[in-house]
Amino acid sequence: MTSKQAIEHTLFEQSHRIYLKGSRPDLLVPVREIQLADTTKSDGTVEANDPVRVYDTSGPWGDPDFHGDPLRGLPRMREAWIRERGDVEEYDGREVKPQDDGYLTEVHRAGARIRNNSRKLIEFENKPARPLRAKSGKCVTQLHYAREGIITPEMEFIAIRENMKLQAAKEALIPSSNADRNSLSIQHPGQSFGASIPEEITPEFVRSEVARGRAIIPCNVNHPEVEPMIIGRNFLVKINTNIGNSAVASSIEEEVEKMRWSTKWGGDTLMDLSTGKNIHQTREWILRNCPVPVGTVPIYQALEKVNGKAEDLSWEIFRDTLIEQAEQGVDYFTIHAAVLLRYVPMTAKRMTGIVSRGGSIMAKWCLSHHKENFLYTHWDEICEIMAAYDISFSIGDGLRPGSIADANDEAQFGELETQGELTERAWKYRVQVMNEGPGHVPMHMIQENMEKQIEWCHEAPFYTLGPLTTDVAPGYDHITSGIGAAMIGWYGCAMLCYVTPKEHLGLPNKDDVRDGVITYKIAAHAADLAKGHPAAQYRDNALSKARFEFRWNDQFNLSLDPEKARSFHDETLPADSAKTAHFCSMCGPNFCSMKITEDVRQYAAEQGITADAALEVGMMEKSAEFKERGSEVYVGGES
Amino acid sequence: MTSKQAIEHTLFEQSHRIYLKGSRPDLLVPVREIQLADTTKSDGTVEANDPVRVYDTSGPWGDPDFHGDPLRGLPRMREAWIRERGDVEEYDGREVKPQDDGYLTEVHRAGARIRNNSRKLIEFENKPARPLRAKSGKCVTQLHYAREGIITPEMEFIAIRENMKLQAAKEALIPSSNADRNSLSIQHPGQSFGASIPEEITPEFVRSEVARGRAIIPCNVNHPEVEPMIIGRNFLVKINTNIGNSAVASSIEEEVEKMRWSTKWGGDTLMDLSTGKNIHQTREWILRNCPVPVGTVPIYQALEKVNGKAEDLSWEIFRDTLIEQAEQGVDYFTIHAAVLLRYVPMTAKRMTGIVSRGGSIMAKWCLSHHKENFLYTHWDEICEIMAAYDISFSIGDGLRPGSIADANDEAQFGELETQGELTERAWKYRVQVMNEGPGHVPMHMIQENMEKQIEWCHEAPFYTLGPLTTDVAPGYDHITSGIGAAMIGWYGCAMLCYVTPKEHLGLPNKDDVRDGVITYKIAAHAADLAKGHPAAQYRDNALSKARFEFRWNDQFNLSLDPEKARSFHDETLPADSAKTAHFCSMCGPNFCSMKITEDVRQYAAEQGITADAALEVGMMEKSAEFKERGSEVYVGGES
Repeated sequence: MTSKQAIEHTLFEQSHRIYLKGSRPDLLVPVREIQLADTTKSDGTVEANDPVRVYDTSGPWGDPDFHGDPLRGLPRMREAWIRERGDVEEYDGREVKPQDDGYLTEVHRAGARIRNNSRKLIEFENKPARPLRAKSGKCVTQLHYAREGIITPEMEFIAIRENMKLQAAKEALIPSSNADRNSLSIQHPGQSFGASIPEEITPEFVRSEVARGRAIIPCNVNHPEVEPMIIGRNFLVKINTNIGNSAVASSIEEEVEKMRWSTKWGGDTLMDLSTGKNIHQTREWILRNCPVPVGTVPIYQALEKVNGKAEDLSWEIFRDTLIEQAEQGVDYFTIHAAVLLRYVPMTAKRMTGIVSRGGSIMAKWCLSHHKENFLYTHWDEICEIMAAYDISFSIGDGLRPGSIADANDEAQFGELETQGELTERAWKYRVQVMNEGPGHVPMHMIQENMEKQIEWCHEAPFYTLGPLTTDVAPGYDHITSGIGAAMIGWYGCAMLCYVTPKEHLGLPNKDDVRDGVITYKIAAHAADLAKGHPAAQYRDNALSKARFEFRWNDQFNLSLDPEKARSFHDETLPADSAKTAHFCSMCGPNFCSMKITEDVRQYAAEQGITADAALEVGMMEKSAEFKERGSEVYVGGES
Repeated sequence: MTSKQAIEHTLFEQSHRIYLKGSRPDLLVPVREIQLADTTKSDGTVEANDPVRVYDTSGPWGDPDFHGDPLRGLPRMREAWIRERGDVEEYDGREVKPQDDGYLTEVHRAGARIRNNSRKLIEFENKPARPLRAKSGKCVTQLHYAREGIITPEMEFIAIRENMKLQAAKEALIPSSNADRNSLSIQHPGQSFGASIPEEITPEFVRSEVARGRAIIPCNVNHPEVEPMIIGRNFLVKINTNIGNSAVASSIEEEVEKMRWSTKWGGDTLMDLSTGKNIHQTREWILRNCPVPVGTVPIYQALEKVNGKAEDLSWEIFRDTLIEQAEQGVDYFTIHAAVLLRYVPMTAKRMTGIVSRGGSIMAKWCLSHHKENFLYTHWDEICEIMAAYDISFSIGDGLRPGSIADANDEAQFGELETQGELTERAWKYRVQVMNEGPGHVPMHMIQENMEKQIEWCHEAPFYTLGPLTTDVAPGYDHITSGIGAAMIGWYGCAMLCYVTPKEHLGLPNKDDVRDGVITYKIAAHAADLAKGHPAAQYRDNALSKARFEFRWNDQFNLSLDPEKARSFHDETLPADSAKTAHFCSMCGPNFCSMKITEDVRQYAAEQGITADAALEVGMMEKSAEFKERGSEVYVGGES
């Protein structure tokens, strides 16, 4: 990790970072604004195109005026909001031990540092001296504030962020008749399967959704670097990205860089799934540099502390790990507390048994001790810890299906019912909750997952991995799962956990992360369109208008991955002039269907007639005239 | 194009070409059979795994014993079947003219050959001397035979091909209770939206589906190299791939190689969308070497013949082009006859007007002449030509939406209604018909397309381009459209036209073709699973079993793209030993969730108890024993 890397982080072309102001001076919501070229109309007049604002997850790293350094971490933007509520206290945190990083003693740990010169900077130097937690008798969760009727700065931040003031641009839904469709502000009415998406996201709406448990704002009081975001069925569909070193590959530096990379492309939250050595330090680096909520699966680290022997796990070790990670600032914990002893044997007849790492750890523990899952039996204590730091639950789906054959079976749905029970119990402690879901599910069995989750888990947000709609395409599982993710997002899933092309095969590199993130941005956006999220269609409209008008650079810049779009275009037509040419490589310069449409449009406009009345009012008379003019408009000559 | 390239064409590892025999000695249906390794069970016993048969579109090029050469073309497998029906005649075909390849005179054409040394082999030398057509008074379409109650060798070939005798392996549907899911033969009951998929595809079923127009077998009597395949809602979902040089890029050699490449990966049909020079010769090369049906858009070539001036098109030039391509052996024609004059002005208020090339050519012609589309007014004559060669219609959707905003509008649905009218009229001539569909459609508006097409087009097969579910991801439109393709395939679409990552941006290279084909194979297979196509799940089951048992090579070989799966695995764990290791890079050697499941399974088996009775019969007593044994099974030790 060098400061150099921070500077090399590339930004998007023709994009400006702007900040939308809230009700207080320190409430500044980052938005990326894409500048567009003018439209030159066929009559020669020039029309300006408004810049397009897009949701920006890159944090300060995406601001060209920010000259931060991963060695120092991000500004602690939210710290004032947390402290001024007066309900947290600093305290002497738990002592960080060599075992937290997988070393027997400090000597072993120091030895590892010396042996590995390329990874000198194992420890993050600039971490806060003392952690925060709720004062005795206080609850510091966003759910608590929401239930008390308090609109927090976090909620206001989110309302502005979800809106981006795009609603103002949304004039009308497309009517069923053949009215104008060429305005940027039109949008198809959605089909939301009973969601309650308002026309405008207000701070009060955010509060009310959090209050009823239908949305969560993951934001540990010890992660003040986070820019608040919301996960809920009535908001924009979010995506999660996973990173994490493992026993066989990767390093801290790579993981921090992957984090910045995934948030550049649009990752809304990040799970650090590290295993092996240096888990604690890797997490510290990530948290101090991460502008999005960070989730973990604490049982992974707990398992490392017992040298990988699941049966040696205990509530005490797990509890210690929760505190360790809570003090660092993890925003949500995946906890596989619904893997009950009685569900475990149900997996014996499966095609692929238990494929969740956390699920199988707990299954093994249950079978070894023949006791109920200690995460389940200690649920109330876990809730108390989570409440003290405002850590959200992501109740794990340890028995999710790992193959098409195992989809929607008794083990999976048994666990889902228990997730629902745990959800209600967590809400009593005012801890925010989402539920994790599958996995591998054929298309026609996806909706049942969403319906059961809404019913059994009382509308708590659903957070699914894919689901993969077939097992036959390892190497392309971002796509097999992107299909299922788009569909379940449409049906109501609030957050989609990305899958990279390396799923089932290896650890993702930066290209894989990018492919996974973009695929999931596509799935989430397709779901927003289908649900009819306000103004979701605005970006599609703007891009299609640019495409139609041959504003190639605008088309690239409005896309989810401008760099790739531009490079693909360059492969066939590298000349700069091709970026302004009114043709493309598909049809060549002599013929272009879009060009012809311009003729149709101009013709209809000249006639001063509405579309469906055109024939009647005598287009025939104008035929010869059109022929004369039109035939010279776009056809070059080639013999 | 050199003979060398033919030899370099790589085959799949551990795959054998086998031929399933039909009722006559020359009826041999190619299938790829994937050999699998044995399973070594935890008790040390070894169990063989049956090879898995998969549908194979690669033709003779995929047979290691075939030593053909693109210079000579493929064997004319179907010729005997065609001739022995006694209803075709050889005749002196239309003379091939320099204008067919875009040259004014033979001198210009020869000049082009000299200038371009790298493309010496413009003409395919080994083409048949004289074409075939129906004898006067005879109809030679598969629809005709089907209506007459005749089961042709083509139909029998298809029945064997669709079945692959997999039904025999399909013992049972997965019951709703928690029964065994670990048999290769189990499958989820599908949801087919009213399709009529039988348990076994018989030749008689093929005949009956063709007879009622619900399926087509595109097979021009002049394309005897084609291996028969079927497109219909009650069969496996098919995919089409597009190739074609354009005025700005690519060569004949590249296009032939792309054809072989796309059929290697699973393209079921191929459209040659060439424009610019050498259209005729490019098509000849492709047809003579192509084992799958070839489609074209004849208006593209007709337009070249009038130097790109749409208004100069005439019925005579178009008719001449139809005959030219019919004699070469094109199996289906996209004809934009439903772009009626009255629909054209409806596109004026669209976001992106007319984006179909064929649609805009006809729109321009209609407006210029202010006459009705000459393809519509000459429909009966077109039908007569198609019937004489058994060319299938792919009735074009020239007014398909080119953006989310334009989805499902009046112009699009107006054209679809006319497609229905033309379908019925073609059926009177016993010409086979499918209908083309969109385009760009958000997820929630896809099903309406399928429902209207089934109703208005009388169950003729639907053939859609995607649809793309969002406009915002140029560079990833194989994915934006793969989502829509999977869904519409599930709803009943019979064939999905692939989209490559270069869509909207440039011409696809080989990598793009591969990405497009695999994405669409995923979409088609996900649809087959969701519809409950018999035995569709078999391959998923086999792959998941291999995955679960750490048979890495089997997992790769069973996948849609074994080369990519293998290379991805190698990136993280390149050692050969990793291919047999019971762990992967995701969790490392010390912990594996799949390994734990083996313990669960073994435990349940030792208990001799059924899954849901496990708790009751006293697992508790066995706890200590399990702990002792289980704790040593998989955990290495790392300090």
